[in-house]
Amino acid sequence: MEYVNSLQGFRLAAVHSGLKSDQQKDLVLIVSDNPCQIEAIFTTNQVKAAPVLYDQNLIASKTPIQAIVLNAGNANACTGKIGMDHVEIMANAVCESIGLENSKALVMSTGVIGVPLSIDKVLAGIEDAGNKLTETQWSEAAFAIMTTDTYPKIISVNNPAGYSIMGIAKGAGMISPDMATMLSVICTDAKLSDSLMNEVSEIWDKSFNRIVVDGDMSTNDSVVLMANGASGVVLGHESDFIQELTSICEYLAKAIVADGEGATKLVTVSVNGAKCEEDAEKICRAIATSPLCKTAFYGADPNWGRFICAAGYSGVEFETNEITLWLTKGNKKIKLFENGMGANYLESEAQELMLEDEWGVEFDLGEGIGNYWLWTCDLSHEYITINGHYRT
Amino acid sequence: MEYVNSLQGFRLAAVHSGLKSDQQKDLVLIVSDNPCQIEAIFTTNQVKAAPVLYDQNLIASKTPIQAIVLNAGNANACTGKIGMDHVEIMANAVCESIGLENSKALVMSTGVIGVPLSIDKVLAGIEDAGNKLTETQWSEAAFAIMTTDTYPKIISVNNPAGYSIMGIAKGAGMISPDMATMLSVICTDAKLSDSLMNEVSEIWDKSFNRIVVDGDMSTNDSVVLMANGASGVVLGHESDFIQELTSICEYLAKAIVADGEGATKLVTVSVNGAKCEEDAEKICRAIATSPLCKTAFYGADPNWGRFICAAGYSGVEFETNEITLWLTKGNKKIKLFENGMGANYLESEAQELMLEDEWGVEFDLGEGIGNYWLWTCDLSHEYITINGHYRT
Repeated sequence: MEYVNSLQGFRLAAVHSGLKSDQQKDLVLIVSDNPCQIEAIFTTNQVKAAPVLYDQNLIASKTPIQAIVLNAGNANACTGKIGMDHVEIMANAVCESIGLENSKALVMSTGVIGVPLSIDKVLAGIEDAGNKLTETQWSEAAFAIMTTDTYPKIISVNNPAGYSIMGIAKGAGMISPDMATMLSVICTDAKLSDSLMNEVSEIWDKSFNRIVVDGDMSTNDSVVLMANGASGVVLGHESDFIQELTSICEYLAKAIVADGEGATKLVTVSVNGAKCEEDAEKICRAIATSPLCKTAFYGADPNWGRFICAAGYSGVEFETNEITLWLTKGNKKIKLFENGMGANYLESEAQELMLEDEWGVEFDLGEGIGNYWLWTCDLSHEYITINGHYRT
Repeated sequence: MEYVNSLQGFRLAAVHSGLKSDQQKDLVLIVSDNPCQIEAIFTTNQVKAAPVLYDQNLIASKTPIQAIVLNAGNANACTGKIGMDHVEIMANAVCESIGLENSKALVMSTGVIGVPLSIDKVLAGIEDAGNKLTETQWSEAAFAIMTTDTYPKIISVNNPAGYSIMGIAKGAGMISPDMATMLSVICTDAKLSDSLMNEVSEIWDKSFNRIVVDGDMSTNDSVVLMANGASGVVLGHESDFIQELTSICEYLAKAIVADGEGATKLVTVSVNGAKCEEDAEKICRAIATSPLCKTAFYGADPNWGRFICAAGYSGVEFETNEITLWLTKGNKKIKLFENGMGANYLESEAQELMLEDEWGVEFDLGEGIGNYWLWTCDLSHEYITINGHYRT
């Protein structure tokens, strides 16, 4: 994929509003010259941050969207009525700064929760950003939305047909120390057919919805696709778009896991041969959230008993004697378990594989064709250090 | 409660069979002079260790039980057909060593999983124990069943009416590094009325079933009550027994959590005002298994956003604005959250409370009368150290 640093018809700015210290950029404004096709997913947490509630309402109303503002440093979650007021004030200020009517801008926030926004700082930041819009600040934007992320997540693709796609994201734990969030904005200057738009959520289901850092789902998780059609290219179902968007979302989702708080390893957990996909998913999630499995990942310990045990309490019925369990890395597979007991494998070889940065755990339940997979990371001392100390 | 060191009609021995190193005792044989009333609960993990399967069958067959053998150092779990053979060989050896017909002995195992038992060592240990039975080795028994526990869990009560109750347990994580387990044996020399026996499982539901260390449920969890009636005292519903058994089970269950792997704090999570008990339980369990909540416990960080957030993804529907959340310690309550936002509390005071060894987190959802509580511990660097290093 060829990297690009701009999209047609999108301008943006990343500025320092004061929510982060040390003159770090913390506010991003992205503006489209014309109304966008929009697809979005949000956290299913019962406790939703004010911007999530605002965006969900706005999108449901089918209002044509032309801008989005993102801030890091404050999640505007659990902030009561004042939080709802603040998000509306932000959205209106965005519209005013770029000469639009109200209700054309989305808002995403990430950072500390339970603390009211310093709205004056944010409003000054929005005005500042509105005056600094250019086509090429995507890298700065990826930096500005970081919280405990250790590197920016950005990827783009330029299709010879004349359109491009750009994606940025931040993560660092499904939740960072004080409940930041997964945020991602993906923009394209193509126009998408209805059938293409319908495929987007499925791509997200197989990327952003398949990552587990600590199993804690945040109040602010949001992903938005904005397609403004400014390139003049109209894409249908036969185009490269699905594959390109899939690559972008997989890249960003994996980067969020790999950069999870304290993470040292990216582990793909996959279950095949289940009675149904739901069963396979339950087992994947039990393993990906089990502290014992995650510390075994960390310690490069092929302690298959922990994996079998987590499968056992996942709520799925299966025959232990029918299970086969492997470690995987590329084409290499090391069988750890079959016939209800440990397989004949070389302990040192299994340990060596687990010392790598990226590998997999694969189950076959031998019962049906249900399958599922997800990406997760290990649980390390560093995770405890990041999250186990009093907020400073 | 007055401590006793023997029960009428029970003899026992704790010996070194060789499953643990350094001449540590690792095998316990408990024998009753006459058949016992039995009540038992076992893990609901789909993957059950061989002794769990054996005991469940034996108890279901209503065979009169007179003995139980426990070993630490090997869980006999995920050991295939040979594991089932081994447990039967153990049980038969117990019966032979004390001159009983087969099928009168239960078996409990804890320790490493996936490794076949050194059955010769175990059989020699059973024979040794059979020759060393006395009435007073309960403390030694509590020591012998330990795995990563840091202290033995034992408690007894002597009722002036002429009967006693003795309980021992081991834990150290719902699962210890290589999947040990929660095991507990409670013996009494009273005879219990049917209505009393029917209450036992409810007492367990409010003690052993309400503890969470890491959320990993083991393959071997087992609790057995044996009542042999040897004291000649027959207890009915009006007796002190329910209160006494409750105290014993609560003591043992809390000791297991307080001695959980790496645990530095015992936290009672309680939810009131839910639509139903199931909702209250879901929220309790979400908080007790959330790495972010548990690291906040560890860091003594009154980071209520993490507690609210975990409640939010527990799968329970509620109104965030109706929630009230407190830290509790004895009669002291510090309100952290209400009306959808942080309450006015003194951060230093909240932090000070959380620095204590034992305290609580209490929710009121303001929706109904459903309530639940459980005991859990924090997630510390030490947990990662214990579980995150290659097995040695």
